[in-house]
Amino acid sequence: MLPDWISAECPAPSHSHREAALARQAQLTKPLGALGRLEEVAVELAALQASERPAAERVPVVLFAGDHGIAAQGVSAYPPEVTVQMLHNFAGGGAAISVLARSLGCPLEVVDVGTLAVDAVRGVSVDKPRRGTRDFSAEQALTPEEVAFACEAGRRAVARQADHAPDLVIFGEMGIGNTTSAAAIAAALLSCAPHDIVGSGTGLDADGRARKAAVISAALARHGLMPNAAVADVLAAVGGLEIIAMAGAMIAAAQRRWPVLVDGFIVSVAALVAVRLNPSCRPWLLFSHRSAERGHAVVLDALGARPLIDLDLRLGEASGAATALPIIRLACALHNGMATFAEAAVSGRET
Amino acid sequence: MLPDWISAECPAPSHSHREAALARQAQLTKPLGALGRLEEVAVELAALQASERPAAERVPVVLFAGDHGIAAQGVSAYPPEVTVQMLHNFAGGGAAISVLARSLGCPLEVVDVGTLAVDAVRGVSVDKPRRGTRDFSAEQALTPEEVAFACEAGRRAVARQADHAPDLVIFGEMGIGNTTSAAAIAAALLSCAPHDIVGSGTGLDADGRARKAAVISAALARHGLMPNAAVADVLAAVGGLEIIAMAGAMIAAAQRRWPVLVDGFIVSVAALVAVRLNPSCRPWLLFSHRSAERGHAVVLDALGARPLIDLDLRLGEASGAATALPIIRLACALHNGMATFAEAAVSGRET
Repeated sequence: MLPDWISAECPAPSHSHREAALARQAQLTKPLGALGRLEEVAVELAALQASERPAAERVPVVLFAGDHGIAAQGVSAYPPEVTVQMLHNFAGGGAAISVLARSLGCPLEVVDVGTLAVDAVRGVSVDKPRRGTRDFSAEQALTPEEVAFACEAGRRAVARQADHAPDLVIFGEMGIGNTTSAAAIAAALLSCAPHDIVGSGTGLDADGRARKAAVISAALARHGLMPNAAVADVLAAVGGLEIIAMAGAMIAAAQRRWPVLVDGFIVSVAALVAVRLNPSCRPWLLFSHRSAERGHAVVLDALGARPLIDLDLRLGEASGAATALPIIRLACALHNGMATFAEAAVSGRET
Repeated sequence: MLPDWISAECPAPSHSHREAALARQAQLTKPLGALGRLEEVAVELAALQASERPAAERVPVVLFAGDHGIAAQGVSAYPPEVTVQMLHNFAGGGAAISVLARSLGCPLEVVDVGTLAVDAVRGVSVDKPRRGTRDFSAEQALTPEEVAFACEAGRRAVARQADHAPDLVIFGEMGIGNTTSAAAIAAALLSCAPHDIVGSGTGLDADGRARKAAVISAALARHGLMPNAAVADVLAAVGGLEIIAMAGAMIAAAQRRWPVLVDGFIVSVAALVAVRLNPSCRPWLLFSHRSAERGHAVVLDALGARPLIDLDLRLGEASGAATALPIIRLACALHNGMATFAEAAVSGRET
């Protein structure tokens, strides 16, 4: 069973702050709407933060890592040991998200919620119910208790960020095989054909993608995941610990009034899980980028999400969200720092 | 006549540095290509800067302002006095580009290359042949000597940035009526119908756009601008001083090996002019954003340009280029700061 807090209502954004932010945008020295999505994101953040001056300065990044039994079925271009090797690289500062977080001044916490690592990795938090999921082509990936544990691990990771007093939080993932788990979850929740949602992951060719789709189709049939299957059943059957942890983290963040900047395909599948489990978290999810991974467009459509950037990224690790963060910071700077027509003594429209 | 330096060959990007940058990208701890356009832009900048470590830290922004006689024909939603009012706002720190440049740590120089201002505005450089262009619905906008002066003003502005030792430069514009001049130039150079290139500018409705297109069509006919008209003749007939100054500035920057980050519609029209005058400057132009202004897509296609971001911006003032700059900075940070597979002891692909 999922923990009770998962379904506890998230607060609503502030209607009055949204209205005030819209009114301010109309007074700034630019044609109305000329800053396009920069205006929208500032207004949205003002409503979420219930603030007249939206901010995106304090933005902790939490990276959840897990391994996947399904990796034994040849669904990834990289071997499973890469997950644990990358834990060292994250902590050592050499991974993409390490560089991005450093450049952006974002605190980075890496949480092992289920990798194959036996020994602790210096600089990595450990909060896992088991080492890797089971191979879902043969059996349930997780027990209901393990699913619940991963939700709690996500919530605990959120609680640890409170000292940073976040303006916004970013969640990311790493785990060889996790696009396969994510595609299986999305196919089950959206009742779509695995073929339409399976992408290249870290670099499969067309044959590899076909094999991956076949593995997922067979698994969905084996586990009897009919359309409208309960979300918890889908997660136990084909889930990944880092994906479930992120879904729990999103709901926990929204319950604290922290906006979440959502990364790419896998994080968006976690967002889909979160929204299915608790629709009141949806307004707290801002979408950063459109990934090159095939299934992302399908998941974004299902969530009614329109990301800020599209740079053909397909790395994961929260790299797309981190790359979009400066745009949100500039949107806030413009909202807060521009002069009004009256302040600058600039004439308005003629008509 | 245009000055001789306009056609002087620009240096070629460094082939060997491009190859070295591509080789480095293949060794970084990520699937090859997984950072998409961030990889491309880092490689491109390495080739342009002839450097193993591309950078986008020192990025002066030069804003060229001018007024347009054609504004008398009701082609803008704002009155002409806004141009000079905005000079004060730029210098006073309240305009969008003022806020962006401050946030990004970019030096900002505003150059009046032809506004209606009679008195000097504190903090604004003045380098103009006349106050505003003539109304091109009735006569030539500029004399050949005024066109040449504007080219030189662009080159002088570039020379003044040398003390900043730029990694990259950004040019921007402001001028009530300048989308009309830009659309007229683009229609003439691309031999396309004004209707297909005219947009809303600062906020025209459909009737306003139709009027603007009709004004341009009549002017192109009046000035006898046939397909394949000489670029200098087009500029004299329907040009704007800030647009010509930017074209001169782009060529001058490329001749100094400074990459240029191109802003939206009007700056892209200046880029089209620059490339037509001196095709060897094309590799030095990086494109930042796709504007909501209708004609931008047409001009980008003609230049074979694929901008980084698309945020429905239509402000001008170099605001789109400034908004894209952090993405280029992060691309450089990743290229320079990530660990290689060997350094991080991470396994490569299995196949």
